[in-house]
Amino acid sequence: MIATQTDKKQMKIFSLNSNPEIAERISQETGIPLGKLSSRQFSDGEIQINIEESVRGFDIYIIQATSFPVNNHLMELLIMVDACKRASANSINVVMPYFGYARQDRTAAPREPITAKLVANMLVKAGVTRLLTLDLHAVQVQGFFNIPVDNLFTIPLFAQHYYDKGLCQQDVVVVSPKNSGVKRARQLAELLDLPIAIIDYAQDDADREEGYVIGDVAGKRVIMIDDILNTGKTFSEAAKILTDEGATEIYAAASHGLFAGQATELLNQANIKEIVVTDSVATKQAIPDNTLRLSASKLIGEAIVRIQERKPVSPLFDFHKEERK
Amino acid sequence: MIATQTDKKQMKIFSLNSNPEIAERISQETGIPLGKLSSRQFSDGEIQINIEESVRGFDIYIIQATSFPVNNHLMELLIMVDACKRASANSINVVMPYFGYARQDRTAAPREPITAKLVANMLVKAGVTRLLTLDLHAVQVQGFFNIPVDNLFTIPLFAQHYYDKGLCQQDVVVVSPKNSGVKRARQLAELLDLPIAIIDYAQDDADREEGYVIGDVAGKRVIMIDDILNTGKTFSEAAKILTDEGATEIYAAASHGLFAGQATELLNQANIKEIVVTDSVATKQAIPDNTLRLSASKLIGEAIVRIQERKPVSPLFDFHKEERK
Amino acid sequence: MIATQTDKKQMKIFSLNSNPEIAERISQETGIPLGKLSSRQFSDGEIQINIEESVRGFDIYIIQATSFPVNNHLMELLIMVDACKRASANSINVVMPYFGYARQDRTAAPREPITAKLVANMLVKAGVTRLLTLDLHAVQVQGFFNIPVDNLFTIPLFAQHYYDKGLCQQDVVVVSPKNSGVKRARQLAELLDLPIAIIDYAQDDADREEGYVIGDVAGKRVIMIDDILNTGKTFSEAAKILTDEGATEIYAAASHGLFAGQATELLNQANIKEIVVTDSVATKQAIPDNTLRLSASKLIGEAIVRIQERKPVSPLFDFHKEERK
Amino acid sequence: MIATQTDKKQMKIFSLNSNPEIAERISQETGIPLGKLSSRQFSDGEIQINIEESVRGFDIYIIQATSFPVNNHLMELLIMVDACKRASANSINVVMPYFGYARQDRTAAPREPITAKLVANMLVKAGVTRLLTLDLHAVQVQGFFNIPVDNLFTIPLFAQHYYDKGLCQQDVVVVSPKNSGVKRARQLAELLDLPIAIIDYAQDDADREEGYVIGDVAGKRVIMIDDILNTGKTFSEAAKILTDEGATEIYAAASHGLFAGQATELLNQANIKEIVVTDSVATKQAIPDNTLRLSASKLIGEAIVRIQERKPVSPLFDFHKEERK
Amino acid sequence: MIATQTDKKQMKIFSLNSNPEIAERISQETGIPLGKLSSRQFSDGEIQINIEESVRGFDIYIIQATSFPVNNHLMELLIMVDACKRASANSINVVMPYFGYARQDRTAAPREPITAKLVANMLVKAGVTRLLTLDLHAVQVQGFFNIPVDNLFTIPLFAQHYYDKGLCQQDVVVVSPKNSGVKRARQLAELLDLPIAIIDYAQDDADREEGYVIGDVAGKRVIMIDDILNTGKTFSEAAKILTDEGATEIYAAASHGLFAGQATELLNQANIKEIVVTDSVATKQAIPDNTLRLSASKLIGEAIVRIQERKPVSPLFDFHKEERK
Amino acid sequence: MIATQTDKKQMKIFSLNSNPEIAERISQETGIPLGKLSSRQFSDGEIQINIEESVRGFDIYIIQATSFPVNNHLMELLIMVDACKRASANSINVVMPYFGYARQDRTAAPREPITAKLVANMLVKAGVTRLLTLDLHAVQVQGFFNIPVDNLFTIPLFAQHYYDKGLCQQDVVVVSPKNSGVKRARQLAELLDLPIAIIDYAQDDADREEGYVIGDVAGKRVIMIDDILNTGKTFSEAAKILTDEGATEIYAAASHGLFAGQATELLNQANIKEIVVTDSVATKQAIPDNTLRLSASKLIGEAIVRIQERKPVSPLFDFHKEERK
Repeated sequence: MIATQTDKKQMKIFSLNSNPEIAERISQETGIPLGKLSSRQFSDGEIQINIEESVRGFDIYIIQATSFPVNNHLMELLIMVDACKRASANSINVVMPYFGYARQDRTAAPREPITAKLVANMLVKAGVTRLLTLDLHAVQVQGFFNIPVDNLFTIPLFAQHYYDKGLCQQDVVVVSPKNSGVKRARQLAELLDLPIAIIDYAQDDADREEGYVIGDVAGKRVIMIDDILNTGKTFSEAAKILTDEGATEIYAAASHGLFAGQATELLNQANIKEIVVTDSVATKQAIPDNTLRLSASKLIGEAIVRIQERKPVSPLFDFHKEERK
Repeated sequence: MIATQTDKKQMKIFSLNSNPEIAERISQETGIPLGKLSSRQFSDGEIQINIEESVRGFDIYIIQATSFPVNNHLMELLIMVDACKRASANSINVVMPYFGYARQDRTAAPREPITAKLVANMLVKAGVTRLLTLDLHAVQVQGFFNIPVDNLFTIPLFAQHYYDKGLCQQDVVVVSPKNSGVKRARQLAELLDLPIAIIDYAQDDADREEGYVIGDVAGKRVIMIDDILNTGKTFSEAAKILTDEGATEIYAAASHGLFAGQATELLNQANIKEIVVTDSVATKQAIPDNTLRLSASKLIGEAIVRIQERKPVSPLFDFHKEERK
Repeated sequence: MIATQTDKKQMKIFSLNSNPEIAERISQETGIPLGKLSSRQFSDGEIQINIEESVRGFDIYIIQATSFPVNNHLMELLIMVDACKRASANSINVVMPYFGYARQDRTAAPREPITAKLVANMLVKAGVTRLLTLDLHAVQVQGFFNIPVDNLFTIPLFAQHYYDKGLCQQDVVVVSPKNSGVKRARQLAELLDLPIAIIDYAQDDADREEGYVIGDVAGKRVIMIDDILNTGKTFSEAAKILTDEGATEIYAAASHGLFAGQATELLNQANIKEIVVTDSVATKQAIPDNTLRLSASKLIGEAIVRIQERKPVSPLFDFHKEERK
Repeated sequence: MIATQTDKKQMKIFSLNSNPEIAERISQETGIPLGKLSSRQFSDGEIQINIEESVRGFDIYIIQATSFPVNNHLMELLIMVDACKRASANSINVVMPYFGYARQDRTAAPREPITAKLVANMLVKAGVTRLLTLDLHAVQVQGFFNIPVDNLFTIPLFAQHYYDKGLCQQDVVVVSPKNSGVKRARQLAELLDLPIAIIDYAQDDADREEGYVIGDVAGKRVIMIDDILNTGKTFSEAAKILTDEGATEIYAAASHGLFAGQATELLNQANIKEIVVTDSVATKQAIPDNTLRLSASKLIGEAIVRIQERKPVSPLFDFHKEERK
Repeated sequence: MIATQTDKKQMKIFSLNSNPEIAERISQETGIPLGKLSSRQFSDGEIQINIEESVRGFDIYIIQATSFPVNNHLMELLIMVDACKRASANSINVVMPYFGYARQDRTAAPREPITAKLVANMLVKAGVTRLLTLDLHAVQVQGFFNIPVDNLFTIPLFAQHYYDKGLCQQDVVVVSPKNSGVKRARQLAELLDLPIAIIDYAQDDADREEGYVIGDVAGKRVIMIDDILNTGKTFSEAAKILTDEGATEIYAAASHGLFAGQATELLNQANIKEIVVTDSVATKQAIPDNTLRLSASKLIGEAIVRIQERKPVSPLFDFHKEERK
Repeated sequence: MIATQTDKKQMKIFSLNSNPEIAERISQETGIPLGKLSSRQFSDGEIQINIEESVRGFDIYIIQATSFPVNNHLMELLIMVDACKRASANSINVVMPYFGYARQDRTAAPREPITAKLVANMLVKAGVTRLLTLDLHAVQVQGFFNIPVDNLFTIPLFAQHYYDKGLCQQDVVVVSPKNSGVKRARQLAELLDLPIAIIDYAQDDADREEGYVIGDVAGKRVIMIDDILNTGKTFSEAAKILTDEGATEIYAAASHGLFAGQATELLNQANIKEIVVTDSVATKQAIPDNTLRLSASKLIGEAIVRIQERKPVSPLFDFHKEERK
């Protein structure tokens, strides 16, 4: 879907520095060129932004994933929002393919912060009028905001991918690699008409000891699904357990591929046939060899255009298996 | 723990109309008498509150579960908060053993409200300065607030109960009666050193069709655990599936016993040996015959006193198996 | 006045459950069909709303009188507002033919709440951007808001009605049935060029004892006017006093006919020739036999269209006696 | 009631420039000396305030009536509040014997402001944490605030005065000099066990033409009561009407004596035996010869001390006729 | 630049009472007639505003300099903003040629207010959505707001004036008449390619004693520049020092000519050949004989039109020396 | 000054990671040990904080300079504030020896942000109730806040240092190394009774070309003073110009020594006899050889204790030359 001529006159899309690749692709999908700005970081670490074209009266879409280094990317975003607000933008729509700090969404221990709420408050206070994001770690984070939040889902992207590969037959099972991700596994399983299984750890996820499978994976092909692939330990450990339990082939999908720390090394050694992530996060370091990036840019681009044209975003949540020709 | 004389001078506890029984018990646990107020509902449905003793400069604790009829109980609470604020209370602490609307914590479908967030906003706008609640449906709801929220857990209460009954041996398994409650089952299982299993429905929880067990329950005694026992369908249906799968004895525990609609009838017919709930919710109608209410009043009372005495609430989260003498 | 084609594209009108009849009439007056939504109340009392058509970018008008049961109707309204806000409505205009809790507009006794202000705060916090209401109990309630409030008046409707009936001659007097409603009586009297009288109670309105008339009603036809007809006691008692003082015929008009409690029974026994109310409030129970409902739907419909077309609402406040042909 | 030594340590009272006389009397009543500050107005009209003693951590009470010149007095107050807030006062309590702009409490005509609400918003935004005021023009103005507002009443002061003068016998009637003030007349009448009458104008108060009395004043001694004595026209015109109707002696009481414009001249010519006002407003110009000022300083002083000592203010609303000894 | 027909339909310009002359000129520059309103001040000092044409849905521009009497002009502005907000203006843009209280922008001494911030808070709370102002005393005052603030500069106006007079040659030096105004002198000097000098006082500006020149003015023609010409003392004293140091001709420029107190008398006696100010402030009293007012109305008018047409305001900051023909 | 026993019970001081050295010294000065917390940064850049002792009911002082890497240090601070707020701290006082982003305090060019205001908004929204900082770049930044801001000055520290060194005689001149810092030079000069001079650049500070001295430095000993020593270019370039103009000895003082980029190298090569900075900023890299750090810890410590004890901070601004013994 390409924005009509009228809409183009009213909107501008800017990319900040965390993921210019997906911004470029979104620009191509929508047919709207990226706006000009300069964003520099000085030797004392301070960021200075200059928007190099007028935003007065425009609906502004700012693309920024708050991935590593998350604090710099978040501050760059907040500063840009402040600049747009003072320069009289009509609306300030933040497009956040990856929402950093989303896992700090509750006080897990006494005297812990709820940093995801802090981030939400910062965004709104700075002047954001709408948030468009992708696969929030917990959907309740929408409720941290009083502004409209559109949370796009990537499960249909993954379902289509596995459907195309034929991974939707009786010998396939979807596995949640930790007990807190059952909902996500359940959703993919529904789209592909598959059963689910769960990997549980006796001492809670954090330690990942004494893991075992609840459900049946022996002799099965297995698709693990998670939302954030961070250090790779969850998938790596799960692959070991699944192999031990007799799984024949192991696939892994995650919405956000951070590949932090030793993730790439760890996953290259793991018994995983293919890892699929989206392009929500750009990484500087190498990623595992058998990794495939499915672009979420078409999905995000369509959402932006629908928002701008005041059309419902809900059709984007549907999944219609499309036969390959 | 009894509040010291000094603290008593600074605080007052009031009960509204939804659960005067637990309020009375909390009053006894803390040694602080309930404050006097009149709360009437007129023939046109409007509620009028008169606080019949001075609250000027006091730390006020208002006990109100927002259970059925939730809208009346919520408005009664908000009106009381407004009255306290205008009458110059020093702080307004809402003690909510049951947080109504907590399940509407995300936009599950397009154009849905997030009513739990709405409720949070109403409370804060009315003047609440702190919330003390019990077993929130989703812990992320804490992040809907910018005021301190203390969320007490009942899992240790249940663990102690089952431990005392000897339900902590090798033939016992903790079961989540739906895939979205695995975390809760996991927590109880950890305290009792038991394995877990999950009941999953092919068509998502709402329909509860084609349910099956993930994990092993054959020949086992089973403890089902959920947070809200509403219509009784989740436990009733799960009991059938567990029986079919060979479970020998079935127990059920839920933090909040609403027993709405046909719940009591349904559960009386179910193959459940004992249902345990707390006294967070008072009900007018009959409850199932084999239901036991564990009081959360001691837990809540201690939390109130600790808050008032500026002591940490965190010790209340610990579980130390206490041998019966 | 019918909204133009352009306006229709930008606006949607929804009715909630308190007064679908007036909503239907407003829809007919404006030529704008009511939007589709489902609003259900579950067995635990919680309300769930699903808006069944897109509101993204639209100016939304929500029709809801917060009459009995006021707390349910108010919460239904707040939830709908939250849903509209999150679904990116352009503006959220609440049309409230009857504003519940309006009489709790001050702290009449120590430690009383100001519930009308609480309601105002709740509406605004939920996301309302404008309020359109009818005959507020106290006009100062407008000042409880920082958003625009249009308060329509029904006095011209009543004036036209009595003018048409010939109740504007020298033998007619307008009576305020309590000393706090003199202003309203004064306004009707001015439109009809009539004198006023007042019923006063020695022990204040609440008790309605030792009532007497200030002014002259002997041998006169009398029109009593009040804003809220609730339990019927005010009119019923006043009719007795007026009869005792020699009034020959007694008429009664009230903007909002709640008919709560025993109102209908009481008023059927009273010496009142005709009671006129508007259709601002829908009632389930029977209303007095001699009651006439004048519809405020044309007035409200015109106000909605004027608001949407950015035209002044002020012309709707004028009264031009129209001769019957 | 004198503040205890402990309270004195925690509180400071400051007077601004509008009514230093009442501030001095309040200081004497409470035994708390007025704090030191300098407040200058420069040749360009700007006001500069210097607080000349520490307010850090203190409960501050600022005495300022927003009477003529209202805008200067209001800005002086707001600036003082800002200074106290930035200097870390613990609480900022505004004591406003007269609340200027209180009559602009609704949009009487299209596109009118609600200036009383604007003033309320300004006070709260500046940092006021509590308001203590006297005889608000409309009690609903309390609802313009979300902070505690204590609105003291002077009716008992006037009642005691007339009681002492013997104006509580069968030949006395209380008269509201305009139809919108009936409530106030009703309150005084109740305390003195007297009947009431009303002066009504056919063309509304503003024009004061074709005035007539509703009720019976012939051969009676009459006490007129109003809240604000501004230009004197209301009392002056009412005295004429009452004289024409046969009243034998006319008294007038008003909470706030502004005596603006030609008020003094007008009232000196009126057939009024005595005018009673409080000292809420200080005036530079001469006041009518037969004017008596009853001091509200004891009432206000007691309220301040009660607030500071966290005792209820409600006992101050009671009226106990005290016999003269 | 004249506003296009479309824009005119969407905007209205109103002038309040502080500077109707500049408002009239801005109206002429933009081709948009001033809207009708009545703003009266009653004998008790209260201001009442009636907007006499519809503002519903319009972008409103309110022209008001908050010069002497600043408190009246500020309150008049706030009341007008409140009226526009309640009457449903689409946006409320305040055009403030002179921003009163701007010098109280920091706590210069302990327990001082920051009145400029107070004013900012009042404006925003009242409902202002944008501020257009001229030569703020400190540019940091923009940061007192979270709404867009356009701060226009008059230095190019002055530069053009002196360029046209030939005051841009080697024998000219720009002088800051106090050490805190160096930046402003630097800016004018840059546009005219001139050196700068500074007048410094050993005991800080306030006392203006022991003043001396830093830099070289002997035998030079001198242009003094300041932002606010208030009492005239700064220029008058500086002229003496410059004369003593051998300056041959002295010129003075200030953005805002208040001419408060004895300014005119003082400046008429000073050795200043010409004083240039803008018309940002209207004065009732006589101004010095050799004073020239450069109108800022074209600059402000262009800014208003650019804002309304959603064009950047930045081109107005440029200075292109225009040769006289 | 050592905090009394009572105060210690009510307050806790925590240090975050940017400047633990000054925190340690402040702890020693006040006699209050630093609270325990863990603050970790994960491999994906997210910061997690655990406060390891109760803060419930305490007045919390958090020491954090927002120096390099500013975004990490700012986020760490905000997260800590959020944690304290949710853990029921009584007050949250941020002690910020260096306020990062302070120079972005205005929109210097079109469409620039005001990042210092953004930072202020973030702090307040997170829950900060008071800010204690040191030598703000522009004092107007205080006005970016509505909470109390105490801005301590280091000029007296520097004055004492130079007084002790004998740099207060007739052959000494204080120089502002750029025209925008004249005020600071003026303040130091006043304390030492010295004249001032200024370095001015024809093309504005940014380029630092064609610099020259306004005033007289030939044969003089010179003290340059600035607030932020960042890249060292300002001092380095100024030293060249002063040397060229005949200064005999050059000293430099700056409140905040960032020493970013090539600063150390540059300053080691400059003709500066001694550089004095405070310990407001901790640096990892080497600092110039001739640099002396004067500790501001005593000043800050006294301010903290005074704030906690509700005593005025103003005495700390005084400068009394103390003779060395």
